[in-house]
Amino acid sequence: MTSTNRTNRSILLASRPQGAPTADTFRIEQSPVPSPGDGELLLELRYLSLDPYMRGRMNDAPSYTPPFELGAPLTGGAIAQVVESRNAGFAVGDLVLGPLAWQDYALSDGTGLTKLDPAMEHPSHALGALGMPGFTAWHGLLKIGAPGAGDTVVVAAASGAVGSIVGQIAKIKGARVVGVAGGPDKCRRVVEELRFDACVDHRDPGLAEALAAACPEGIDVYFENVGGAVFEAVLPLLNIGARVPVCGLIAHYNDAGYVDTEVAQQGPDRLPGLMTTILKKRIHMEGFIISDHQAEHDDFLRDVGGWITEGRIEVLEDVVDGLENAPEAFIGLLEGRNNGKLVVRARHA
Amino acid sequence: MTSTNRTNRSILLASRPQGAPTADTFRIEQSPVPSPGDGELLLELRYLSLDPYMRGRMNDAPSYTPPFELGAPLTGGAIAQVVESRNAGFAVGDLVLGPLAWQDYALSDGTGLTKLDPAMEHPSHALGALGMPGFTAWHGLLKIGAPGAGDTVVVAAASGAVGSIVGQIAKIKGARVVGVAGGPDKCRRVVEELRFDACVDHRDPGLAEALAAACPEGIDVYFENVGGAVFEAVLPLLNIGARVPVCGLIAHYNDAGYVDTEVAQQGPDRLPGLMTTILKKRIHMEGFIISDHQAEHDDFLRDVGGWITEGRIEVLEDVVDGLENAPEAFIGLLEGRNNGKLVVRARHA
Repeated sequence: MTSTNRTNRSILLASRPQGAPTADTFRIEQSPVPSPGDGELLLELRYLSLDPYMRGRMNDAPSYTPPFELGAPLTGGAIAQVVESRNAGFAVGDLVLGPLAWQDYALSDGTGLTKLDPAMEHPSHALGALGMPGFTAWHGLLKIGAPGAGDTVVVAAASGAVGSIVGQIAKIKGARVVGVAGGPDKCRRVVEELRFDACVDHRDPGLAEALAAACPEGIDVYFENVGGAVFEAVLPLLNIGARVPVCGLIAHYNDAGYVDTEVAQQGPDRLPGLMTTILKKRIHMEGFIISDHQAEHDDFLRDVGGWITEGRIEVLEDVVDGLENAPEAFIGLLEGRNNGKLVVRARHA
Repeated sequence: MTSTNRTNRSILLASRPQGAPTADTFRIEQSPVPSPGDGELLLELRYLSLDPYMRGRMNDAPSYTPPFELGAPLTGGAIAQVVESRNAGFAVGDLVLGPLAWQDYALSDGTGLTKLDPAMEHPSHALGALGMPGFTAWHGLLKIGAPGAGDTVVVAAASGAVGSIVGQIAKIKGARVVGVAGGPDKCRRVVEELRFDACVDHRDPGLAEALAAACPEGIDVYFENVGGAVFEAVLPLLNIGARVPVCGLIAHYNDAGYVDTEVAQQGPDRLPGLMTTILKKRIHMEGFIISDHQAEHDDFLRDVGGWITEGRIEVLEDVVDGLENAPEAFIGLLEGRNNGKLVVRARHA
């Protein structure tokens, strides 16, 4: 296979967004497809993972992942196929998972790549239920949330890549599971396809009352992925000894305050109220970043892989076709337009 | 011993305070000293414990302890001596610890009373370092804070009943310990008598800078007893993976928002900033109430009792003489006027 006549499109960070990213945040550039040197591979993109944490990397601020460079391609978890190989460790046709740039073709010396089982029915699951979001769901729920049978577990962003797995694991553990999602369509899917016990629409102005009605015995575990109004509705319902794994805060990712945690938001100060609740209700809140917990990865794969095979976990995937549509899809992700794990499928996949 | 000619003074809750308690919050009533019936004891007060959590009980709001009744005597941990006994389980002269009313004399059927060892050199320690505050310090620091050798531990209200023990246990565990206390005199005692590595004055307008300078390697454990400006100064200094046992919030006990956690305070909203810090820094915050952990009480007594005997823990006590001075002493406690564990000693003690 020769690639010299083809074009390699790259999606670059054109400007750092103030607030929500827009079309101007991104720029597409074209360049010739490169040729692998000795020890290198040429990779052709198959699936690109779009995840909310990437919004944080668009800011020029220290966080748990370094900022994206301005004018350089965005990067993230992706699946690609080896189309040329001058590396004995990889053969043409191998499917690999790794951190890759948002581009059609890339060179690699194999560092950081994991080969996927060619028998895998849905390779894209390696970016979702069997990848970082699934691992995040499994760790946060089981190691921090630790739901017991009969506990009420509330899951924010319930139809998302992480939330959809959190709720289904909580059901397997015997909990009563209430989702929070945006709009009646998502709520319907959360109950019908993911088999949560109930789902509340966070766009409903009566969210607090609806959540209280859906949780008549209070909340024992709240899996925090969102922040904002959802967290406010949850707070008064937390039971004594409740656990709150803090996994994400998508409602705040476009806030100035997220960039600089010392910049206070305008409005009444809810911090003393939170601290009082933590004290009086003996709440355990804990933030986590899944890359700290690599030692548990095999346990996660065994558990969640097994549950998917047994049909006990349903995988919701939202597939967008074409690398050129990644920017618009990412903008929509932060607005909650996706249903399930958002992946971009390359046209040649 | 007969008591019929003596007077029994009781201190009652005269009104529920709005904000800080004042002299009008309390009322002293006199009544004859009662006589024990069959199976009863007459107890004479020796030491009365004054603790910040009692402020919460003055509000007519549900909390982890029920509200004090309006027009009834206040109650709390106390040490008394048996002066008449018609109960085979207790003899005249026995020293007992238990929840008692703020009064000179009380009848009891013995329920809830613990006999103190008559050889105890400082019985009042049973209200402080060897009582509820010491147990609170031991549990919160070791079970939630879990300091390792070389960790930096910051202790709010460092000269108080709980903080003074927290810091000394952290030193025993090999941590570097920085106290926060109100005023230069307290800070001096914290360093000289309690042997903390440093102490920062929370009345200093440059608190944030002073704390940062005292914690050049950031903060691994923050023992929260205070809230307010101290917590704000701590937040940006927390290291990745820091632990924050939430034991008390004395800066907020007089706030309206403490009564009703759904009433937001005025001012810029610092809640999103806190949540962001919890996420990015993987903070573990956990509220606790010591009465949930009775099963650990023997371990606590063995540890802290041993450390006091070995001279590794210094006990700071602030003794106020005379039951009639309890109201003023309690008002001062919430203003931070005490130095160490605040106890009222009955004049006949």
